Amino acid sequence: MAEKITHRSKDYSEWYNNIIEEAGLAEHSAVKGCMVIKPHGYAIWERMQSVLDGMFKATGHVNAYFPLFIPKSFFSKEASHVEGFAKECAVVTHYRLKNAPDGSIVVDENSKLEEELIIRPTSETIIWNTYKGWVQSYRDLPLLINQWANVVRWEMRTRLFLRTTEFLWQEGHTAHATAEEAVEETKKMLDVYTDFVENWLAVPVIKGVKTANERFAGAIETYCIEAMMQDGKALQMGTSHFLGQNFAKAFDVQFADKEGKLEYVWATSWGVSTRLMGALVMAHSDDQGLVIPPKLAPHQVVIVPVYKENEELQEISETANKIKKSLEARGVRVLYDDSDKQRPGWKFAEYELKGVPVRIVIGLRDLANGTVEMVRRDTKTKHVVPLDQLENTVVETLDLIQTNLYQTALAFREAHTFSVDTWDEFKEKIDHGFVVAHWDGTTETELKIKAETKATIRCIPLDNAQEKGKCIYSGKPSTQRVIFARAY
Amino acid sequence: MAEKITHRSKDYSEWYNNIIEEAGLAEHSAVKGCMVIKPHGYAIWERMQSVLDGMFKATGHVNAYFPLFIPKSFFSKEASHVEGFAKECAVVTHYRLKNAPDGSIVVDENSKLEEELIIRPTSETIIWNTYKGWVQSYRDLPLLINQWANVVRWEMRTRLFLRTTEFLWQEGHTAHATAEEAVEETKKMLDVYTDFVENWLAVPVIKGVKTANERFAGAIETYCIEAMMQDGKALQMGTSHFLGQNFAKAFDVQFADKEGKLEYVWATSWGVSTRLMGALVMAHSDDQGLVIPPKLAPHQVVIVPVYKENEELQEISETANKIKKSLEARGVRVLYDDSDKQRPGWKFAEYELKGVPVRIVIGLRDLANGTVEMVRRDTKTKHVVPLDQLENTVVETLDLIQTNLYQTALAFREAHTFSVDTWDEFKEKIDHGFVVAHWDGTTETELKIKAETKATIRCIPLDNAQEKGKCIYSGKPSTQRVIFARAY
Repeated sequence: MAEKITHRSKDYSEWYNNIIEEAGLAEHSAVKGCMVIKPHGYAIWERMQSVLDGMFKATGHVNAYFPLFIPKSFFSKEASHVEGFAKECAVVTHYRLKNAPDGSIVVDENSKLEEELIIRPTSETIIWNTYKGWVQSYRDLPLLINQWANVVRWEMRTRLFLRTTEFLWQEGHTAHATAEEAVEETKKMLDVYTDFVENWLAVPVIKGVKTANERFAGAIETYCIEAMMQDGKALQMGTSHFLGQNFAKAFDVQFADKEGKLEYVWATSWGVSTRLMGALVMAHSDDQGLVIPPKLAPHQVVIVPVYKENEELQEISETANKIKKSLEARGVRVLYDDSDKQRPGWKFAEYELKGVPVRIVIGLRDLANGTVEMVRRDTKTKHVVPLDQLENTVVETLDLIQTNLYQTALAFREAHTFSVDTWDEFKEKIDHGFVVAHWDGTTETELKIKAETKATIRCIPLDNAQEKGKCIYSGKPSTQRVIFARAY
Repeated sequence: MAEKITHRSKDYSEWYNNIIEEAGLAEHSAVKGCMVIKPHGYAIWERMQSVLDGMFKATGHVNAYFPLFIPKSFFSKEASHVEGFAKECAVVTHYRLKNAPDGSIVVDENSKLEEELIIRPTSETIIWNTYKGWVQSYRDLPLLINQWANVVRWEMRTRLFLRTTEFLWQEGHTAHATAEEAVEETKKMLDVYTDFVENWLAVPVIKGVKTANERFAGAIETYCIEAMMQDGKALQMGTSHFLGQNFAKAFDVQFADKEGKLEYVWATSWGVSTRLMGALVMAHSDDQGLVIPPKLAPHQVVIVPVYKENEELQEISETANKIKKSLEARGVRVLYDDSDKQRPGWKFAEYELKGVPVRIVIGLRDLANGTVEMVRRDTKTKHVVPLDQLENTVVETLDLIQTNLYQTALAFREAHTFSVDTWDEFKEKIDHGFVVAHWDGTTETELKIKAETKATIRCIPLDNAQEKGKCIYSGKPSTQRVIFARAY
């Protein structure tokens, strides 16, 4: 099994594709740039959705659903927004097919739309056009709404989960009476994302703001969380945008304040997507396959029986089902695989590939000894565990794995983050991870560095230490260091 | 509040629109034919999704996700399928916008797609093209996969929830080694839908099969459940299709059986959609607003305090929060509305409009008496309930409401179902509900009856009694009665 996977050290990109294929997470579809999310991948995504959805609701948000289509004219209303998305829009122009005289199926030219419809690449425009009807007075505010949806951004070069033409995501769109409240919301949702990514996905992140050049099209300020993958590259895990009054002005959304004075509404939007699935693969997996943080694993424990005769299986199953039941009572998600289609060795490799955090193996000799074998997916260590200690041991082990994955990723990031002060050092270290360096604050310099090294400014960390220095590239004065990296 | 709602007896269609608007379920969007599902509507849909998803998983199904886009050529591969859907397909022809010389935004003609993409109206074709890669041997079968997704069918005349260009649904697509197993799956999922609609949505249904004329495009047999709305019209609540080997042949999906012989795979598909939201409104609501079956209500109980001074509120809140906590411990979903934005009378009307099954009103006088007022949404009866009996009374009342809604709908259907034997009777009774009558089994007669009366054959009930008779329209021999109705 493991020989199907190229080693990380040999070809990271090929390793990534192998994991996704062999673990059954996703595959390319017949439609260029679009993926099929396979059952195992979708089960992990469902766990992510369910946890995030709970966090959104706990912070006062509700879900709603807005149309897939956006009239072309809406798009043009916010200038920088259309500028940012125009080049990657799927456009619907007709609404009917017909039979051609030769019997083939063709687009019916008589069904041409008067105004073309854009498949949403993000929903600010259609949502703010709707909010216009929902907001009259300060009593109608805030609106705290989230949407789970598919979006389309036409991509020329795609990678499963990381960059696909269609992807799944959630987009929060909130409306507020004051700028302060909107900024507070923007930061609150960045904190929610941080909590989720660090404590569930087990990936440490750096919170920061984007430079003007990397900002969301239509935002005043884009907050983000950035993580390091095992090849030292950065992956943006989520963004939260303070949109000011840009969309309220574009769609004329005003409210009467307590004094009856009309004001434009303040906006935020925030999102995470199936990219997080790519991060999960790239942050934790190894050369044997996928590694899933226990809190997100569809099955946290798999029990595999080892037997020769059917009578043996019955005896083992009795114990296995007891274990399953007692673990489930503790909230653990357990799969007992007693199918006779495959041998135990095949199953061991299969569940290793699929990233199940804990494997329990039960044979007759174990039963006689009152023990089972427990194997950790992260460390691959084997433990002989007495049956009467198994329940507690498994629960503790799941916690240990969760913590270990986070700590390992954190140690990796720290070992691959370099504070540098010369351009030569910059060019050397940028091949190996994050580079923390002074920058003169101009887009010009940022773009030149990108052109020379393919590195971008990932973020200006929140609460960044202020120190005087010289820009790593231009030598001009700088007030702080920012984080450079190559990114997905 | 209630005066915003047209009475059912006066204008049923206007009443339906009023309920949806006033209860905050949905609204028309700026995109023709597409709706916005508002937070209250979406919360009910989320409950439906969650319950159905649990039922699908309990019957061995897993979720996955397939692309939004279907290449036009895929569509043409199954002849009757494309015939059925060609006239309502949204077509993507370009993938980029650009600035015109005059500054406006136009479609970039250089981004024309070589092959147009259809937005999925249903996913059989893209899914069976994918299954081709997943099925080699009998060991790979069955595939039991479901997808939650948005689909698009271009509609000229739309009604919120009942008929919209974009709608949300689930579509199950399964693959089997034998025809028998596929038929069994088709019936099993019809039973799951029946369970959900009768026991959760509280709507009685008739299980049956469609006539050839009403069959799904590409199916061998379409099973369905049909319900009666309060105006006597039928609404198809869900369908489950036995697709035979039609799609396996169109996409060349074969498997090696135990003897190594290649066979085409057998298929089913089955779906329910946001139409169920329309059914929920039309089956149970009244002239005061929405009525939600307790098992699907986002909030099953609302507690409203009645007070003059702030100190009074504190005292009431103490009791209210205790009630909330004790009910939540019994699994009841409770909202305590202590906001001071609106008066109690406004709140009573608002939650009646929104369909919350039970309202609890607490004032100081109640507290002194050790009682509260409890109001049932379905019967509007008021009950003075001692505090120490409240928990049990509420739990019992929620059950009673659930049962009452079902029984009321069943009694209504029975009172509006007519077995008739003459064409004159048929024409008279078809204005008032379901008509059960003999039919000669031909599409010709079926279409003539439709042309004259707008009534369609809703289904041939499963296990239908066989009796000799004469077709209500043609007078030709018939072996059984079928169900005619006007339908949504």
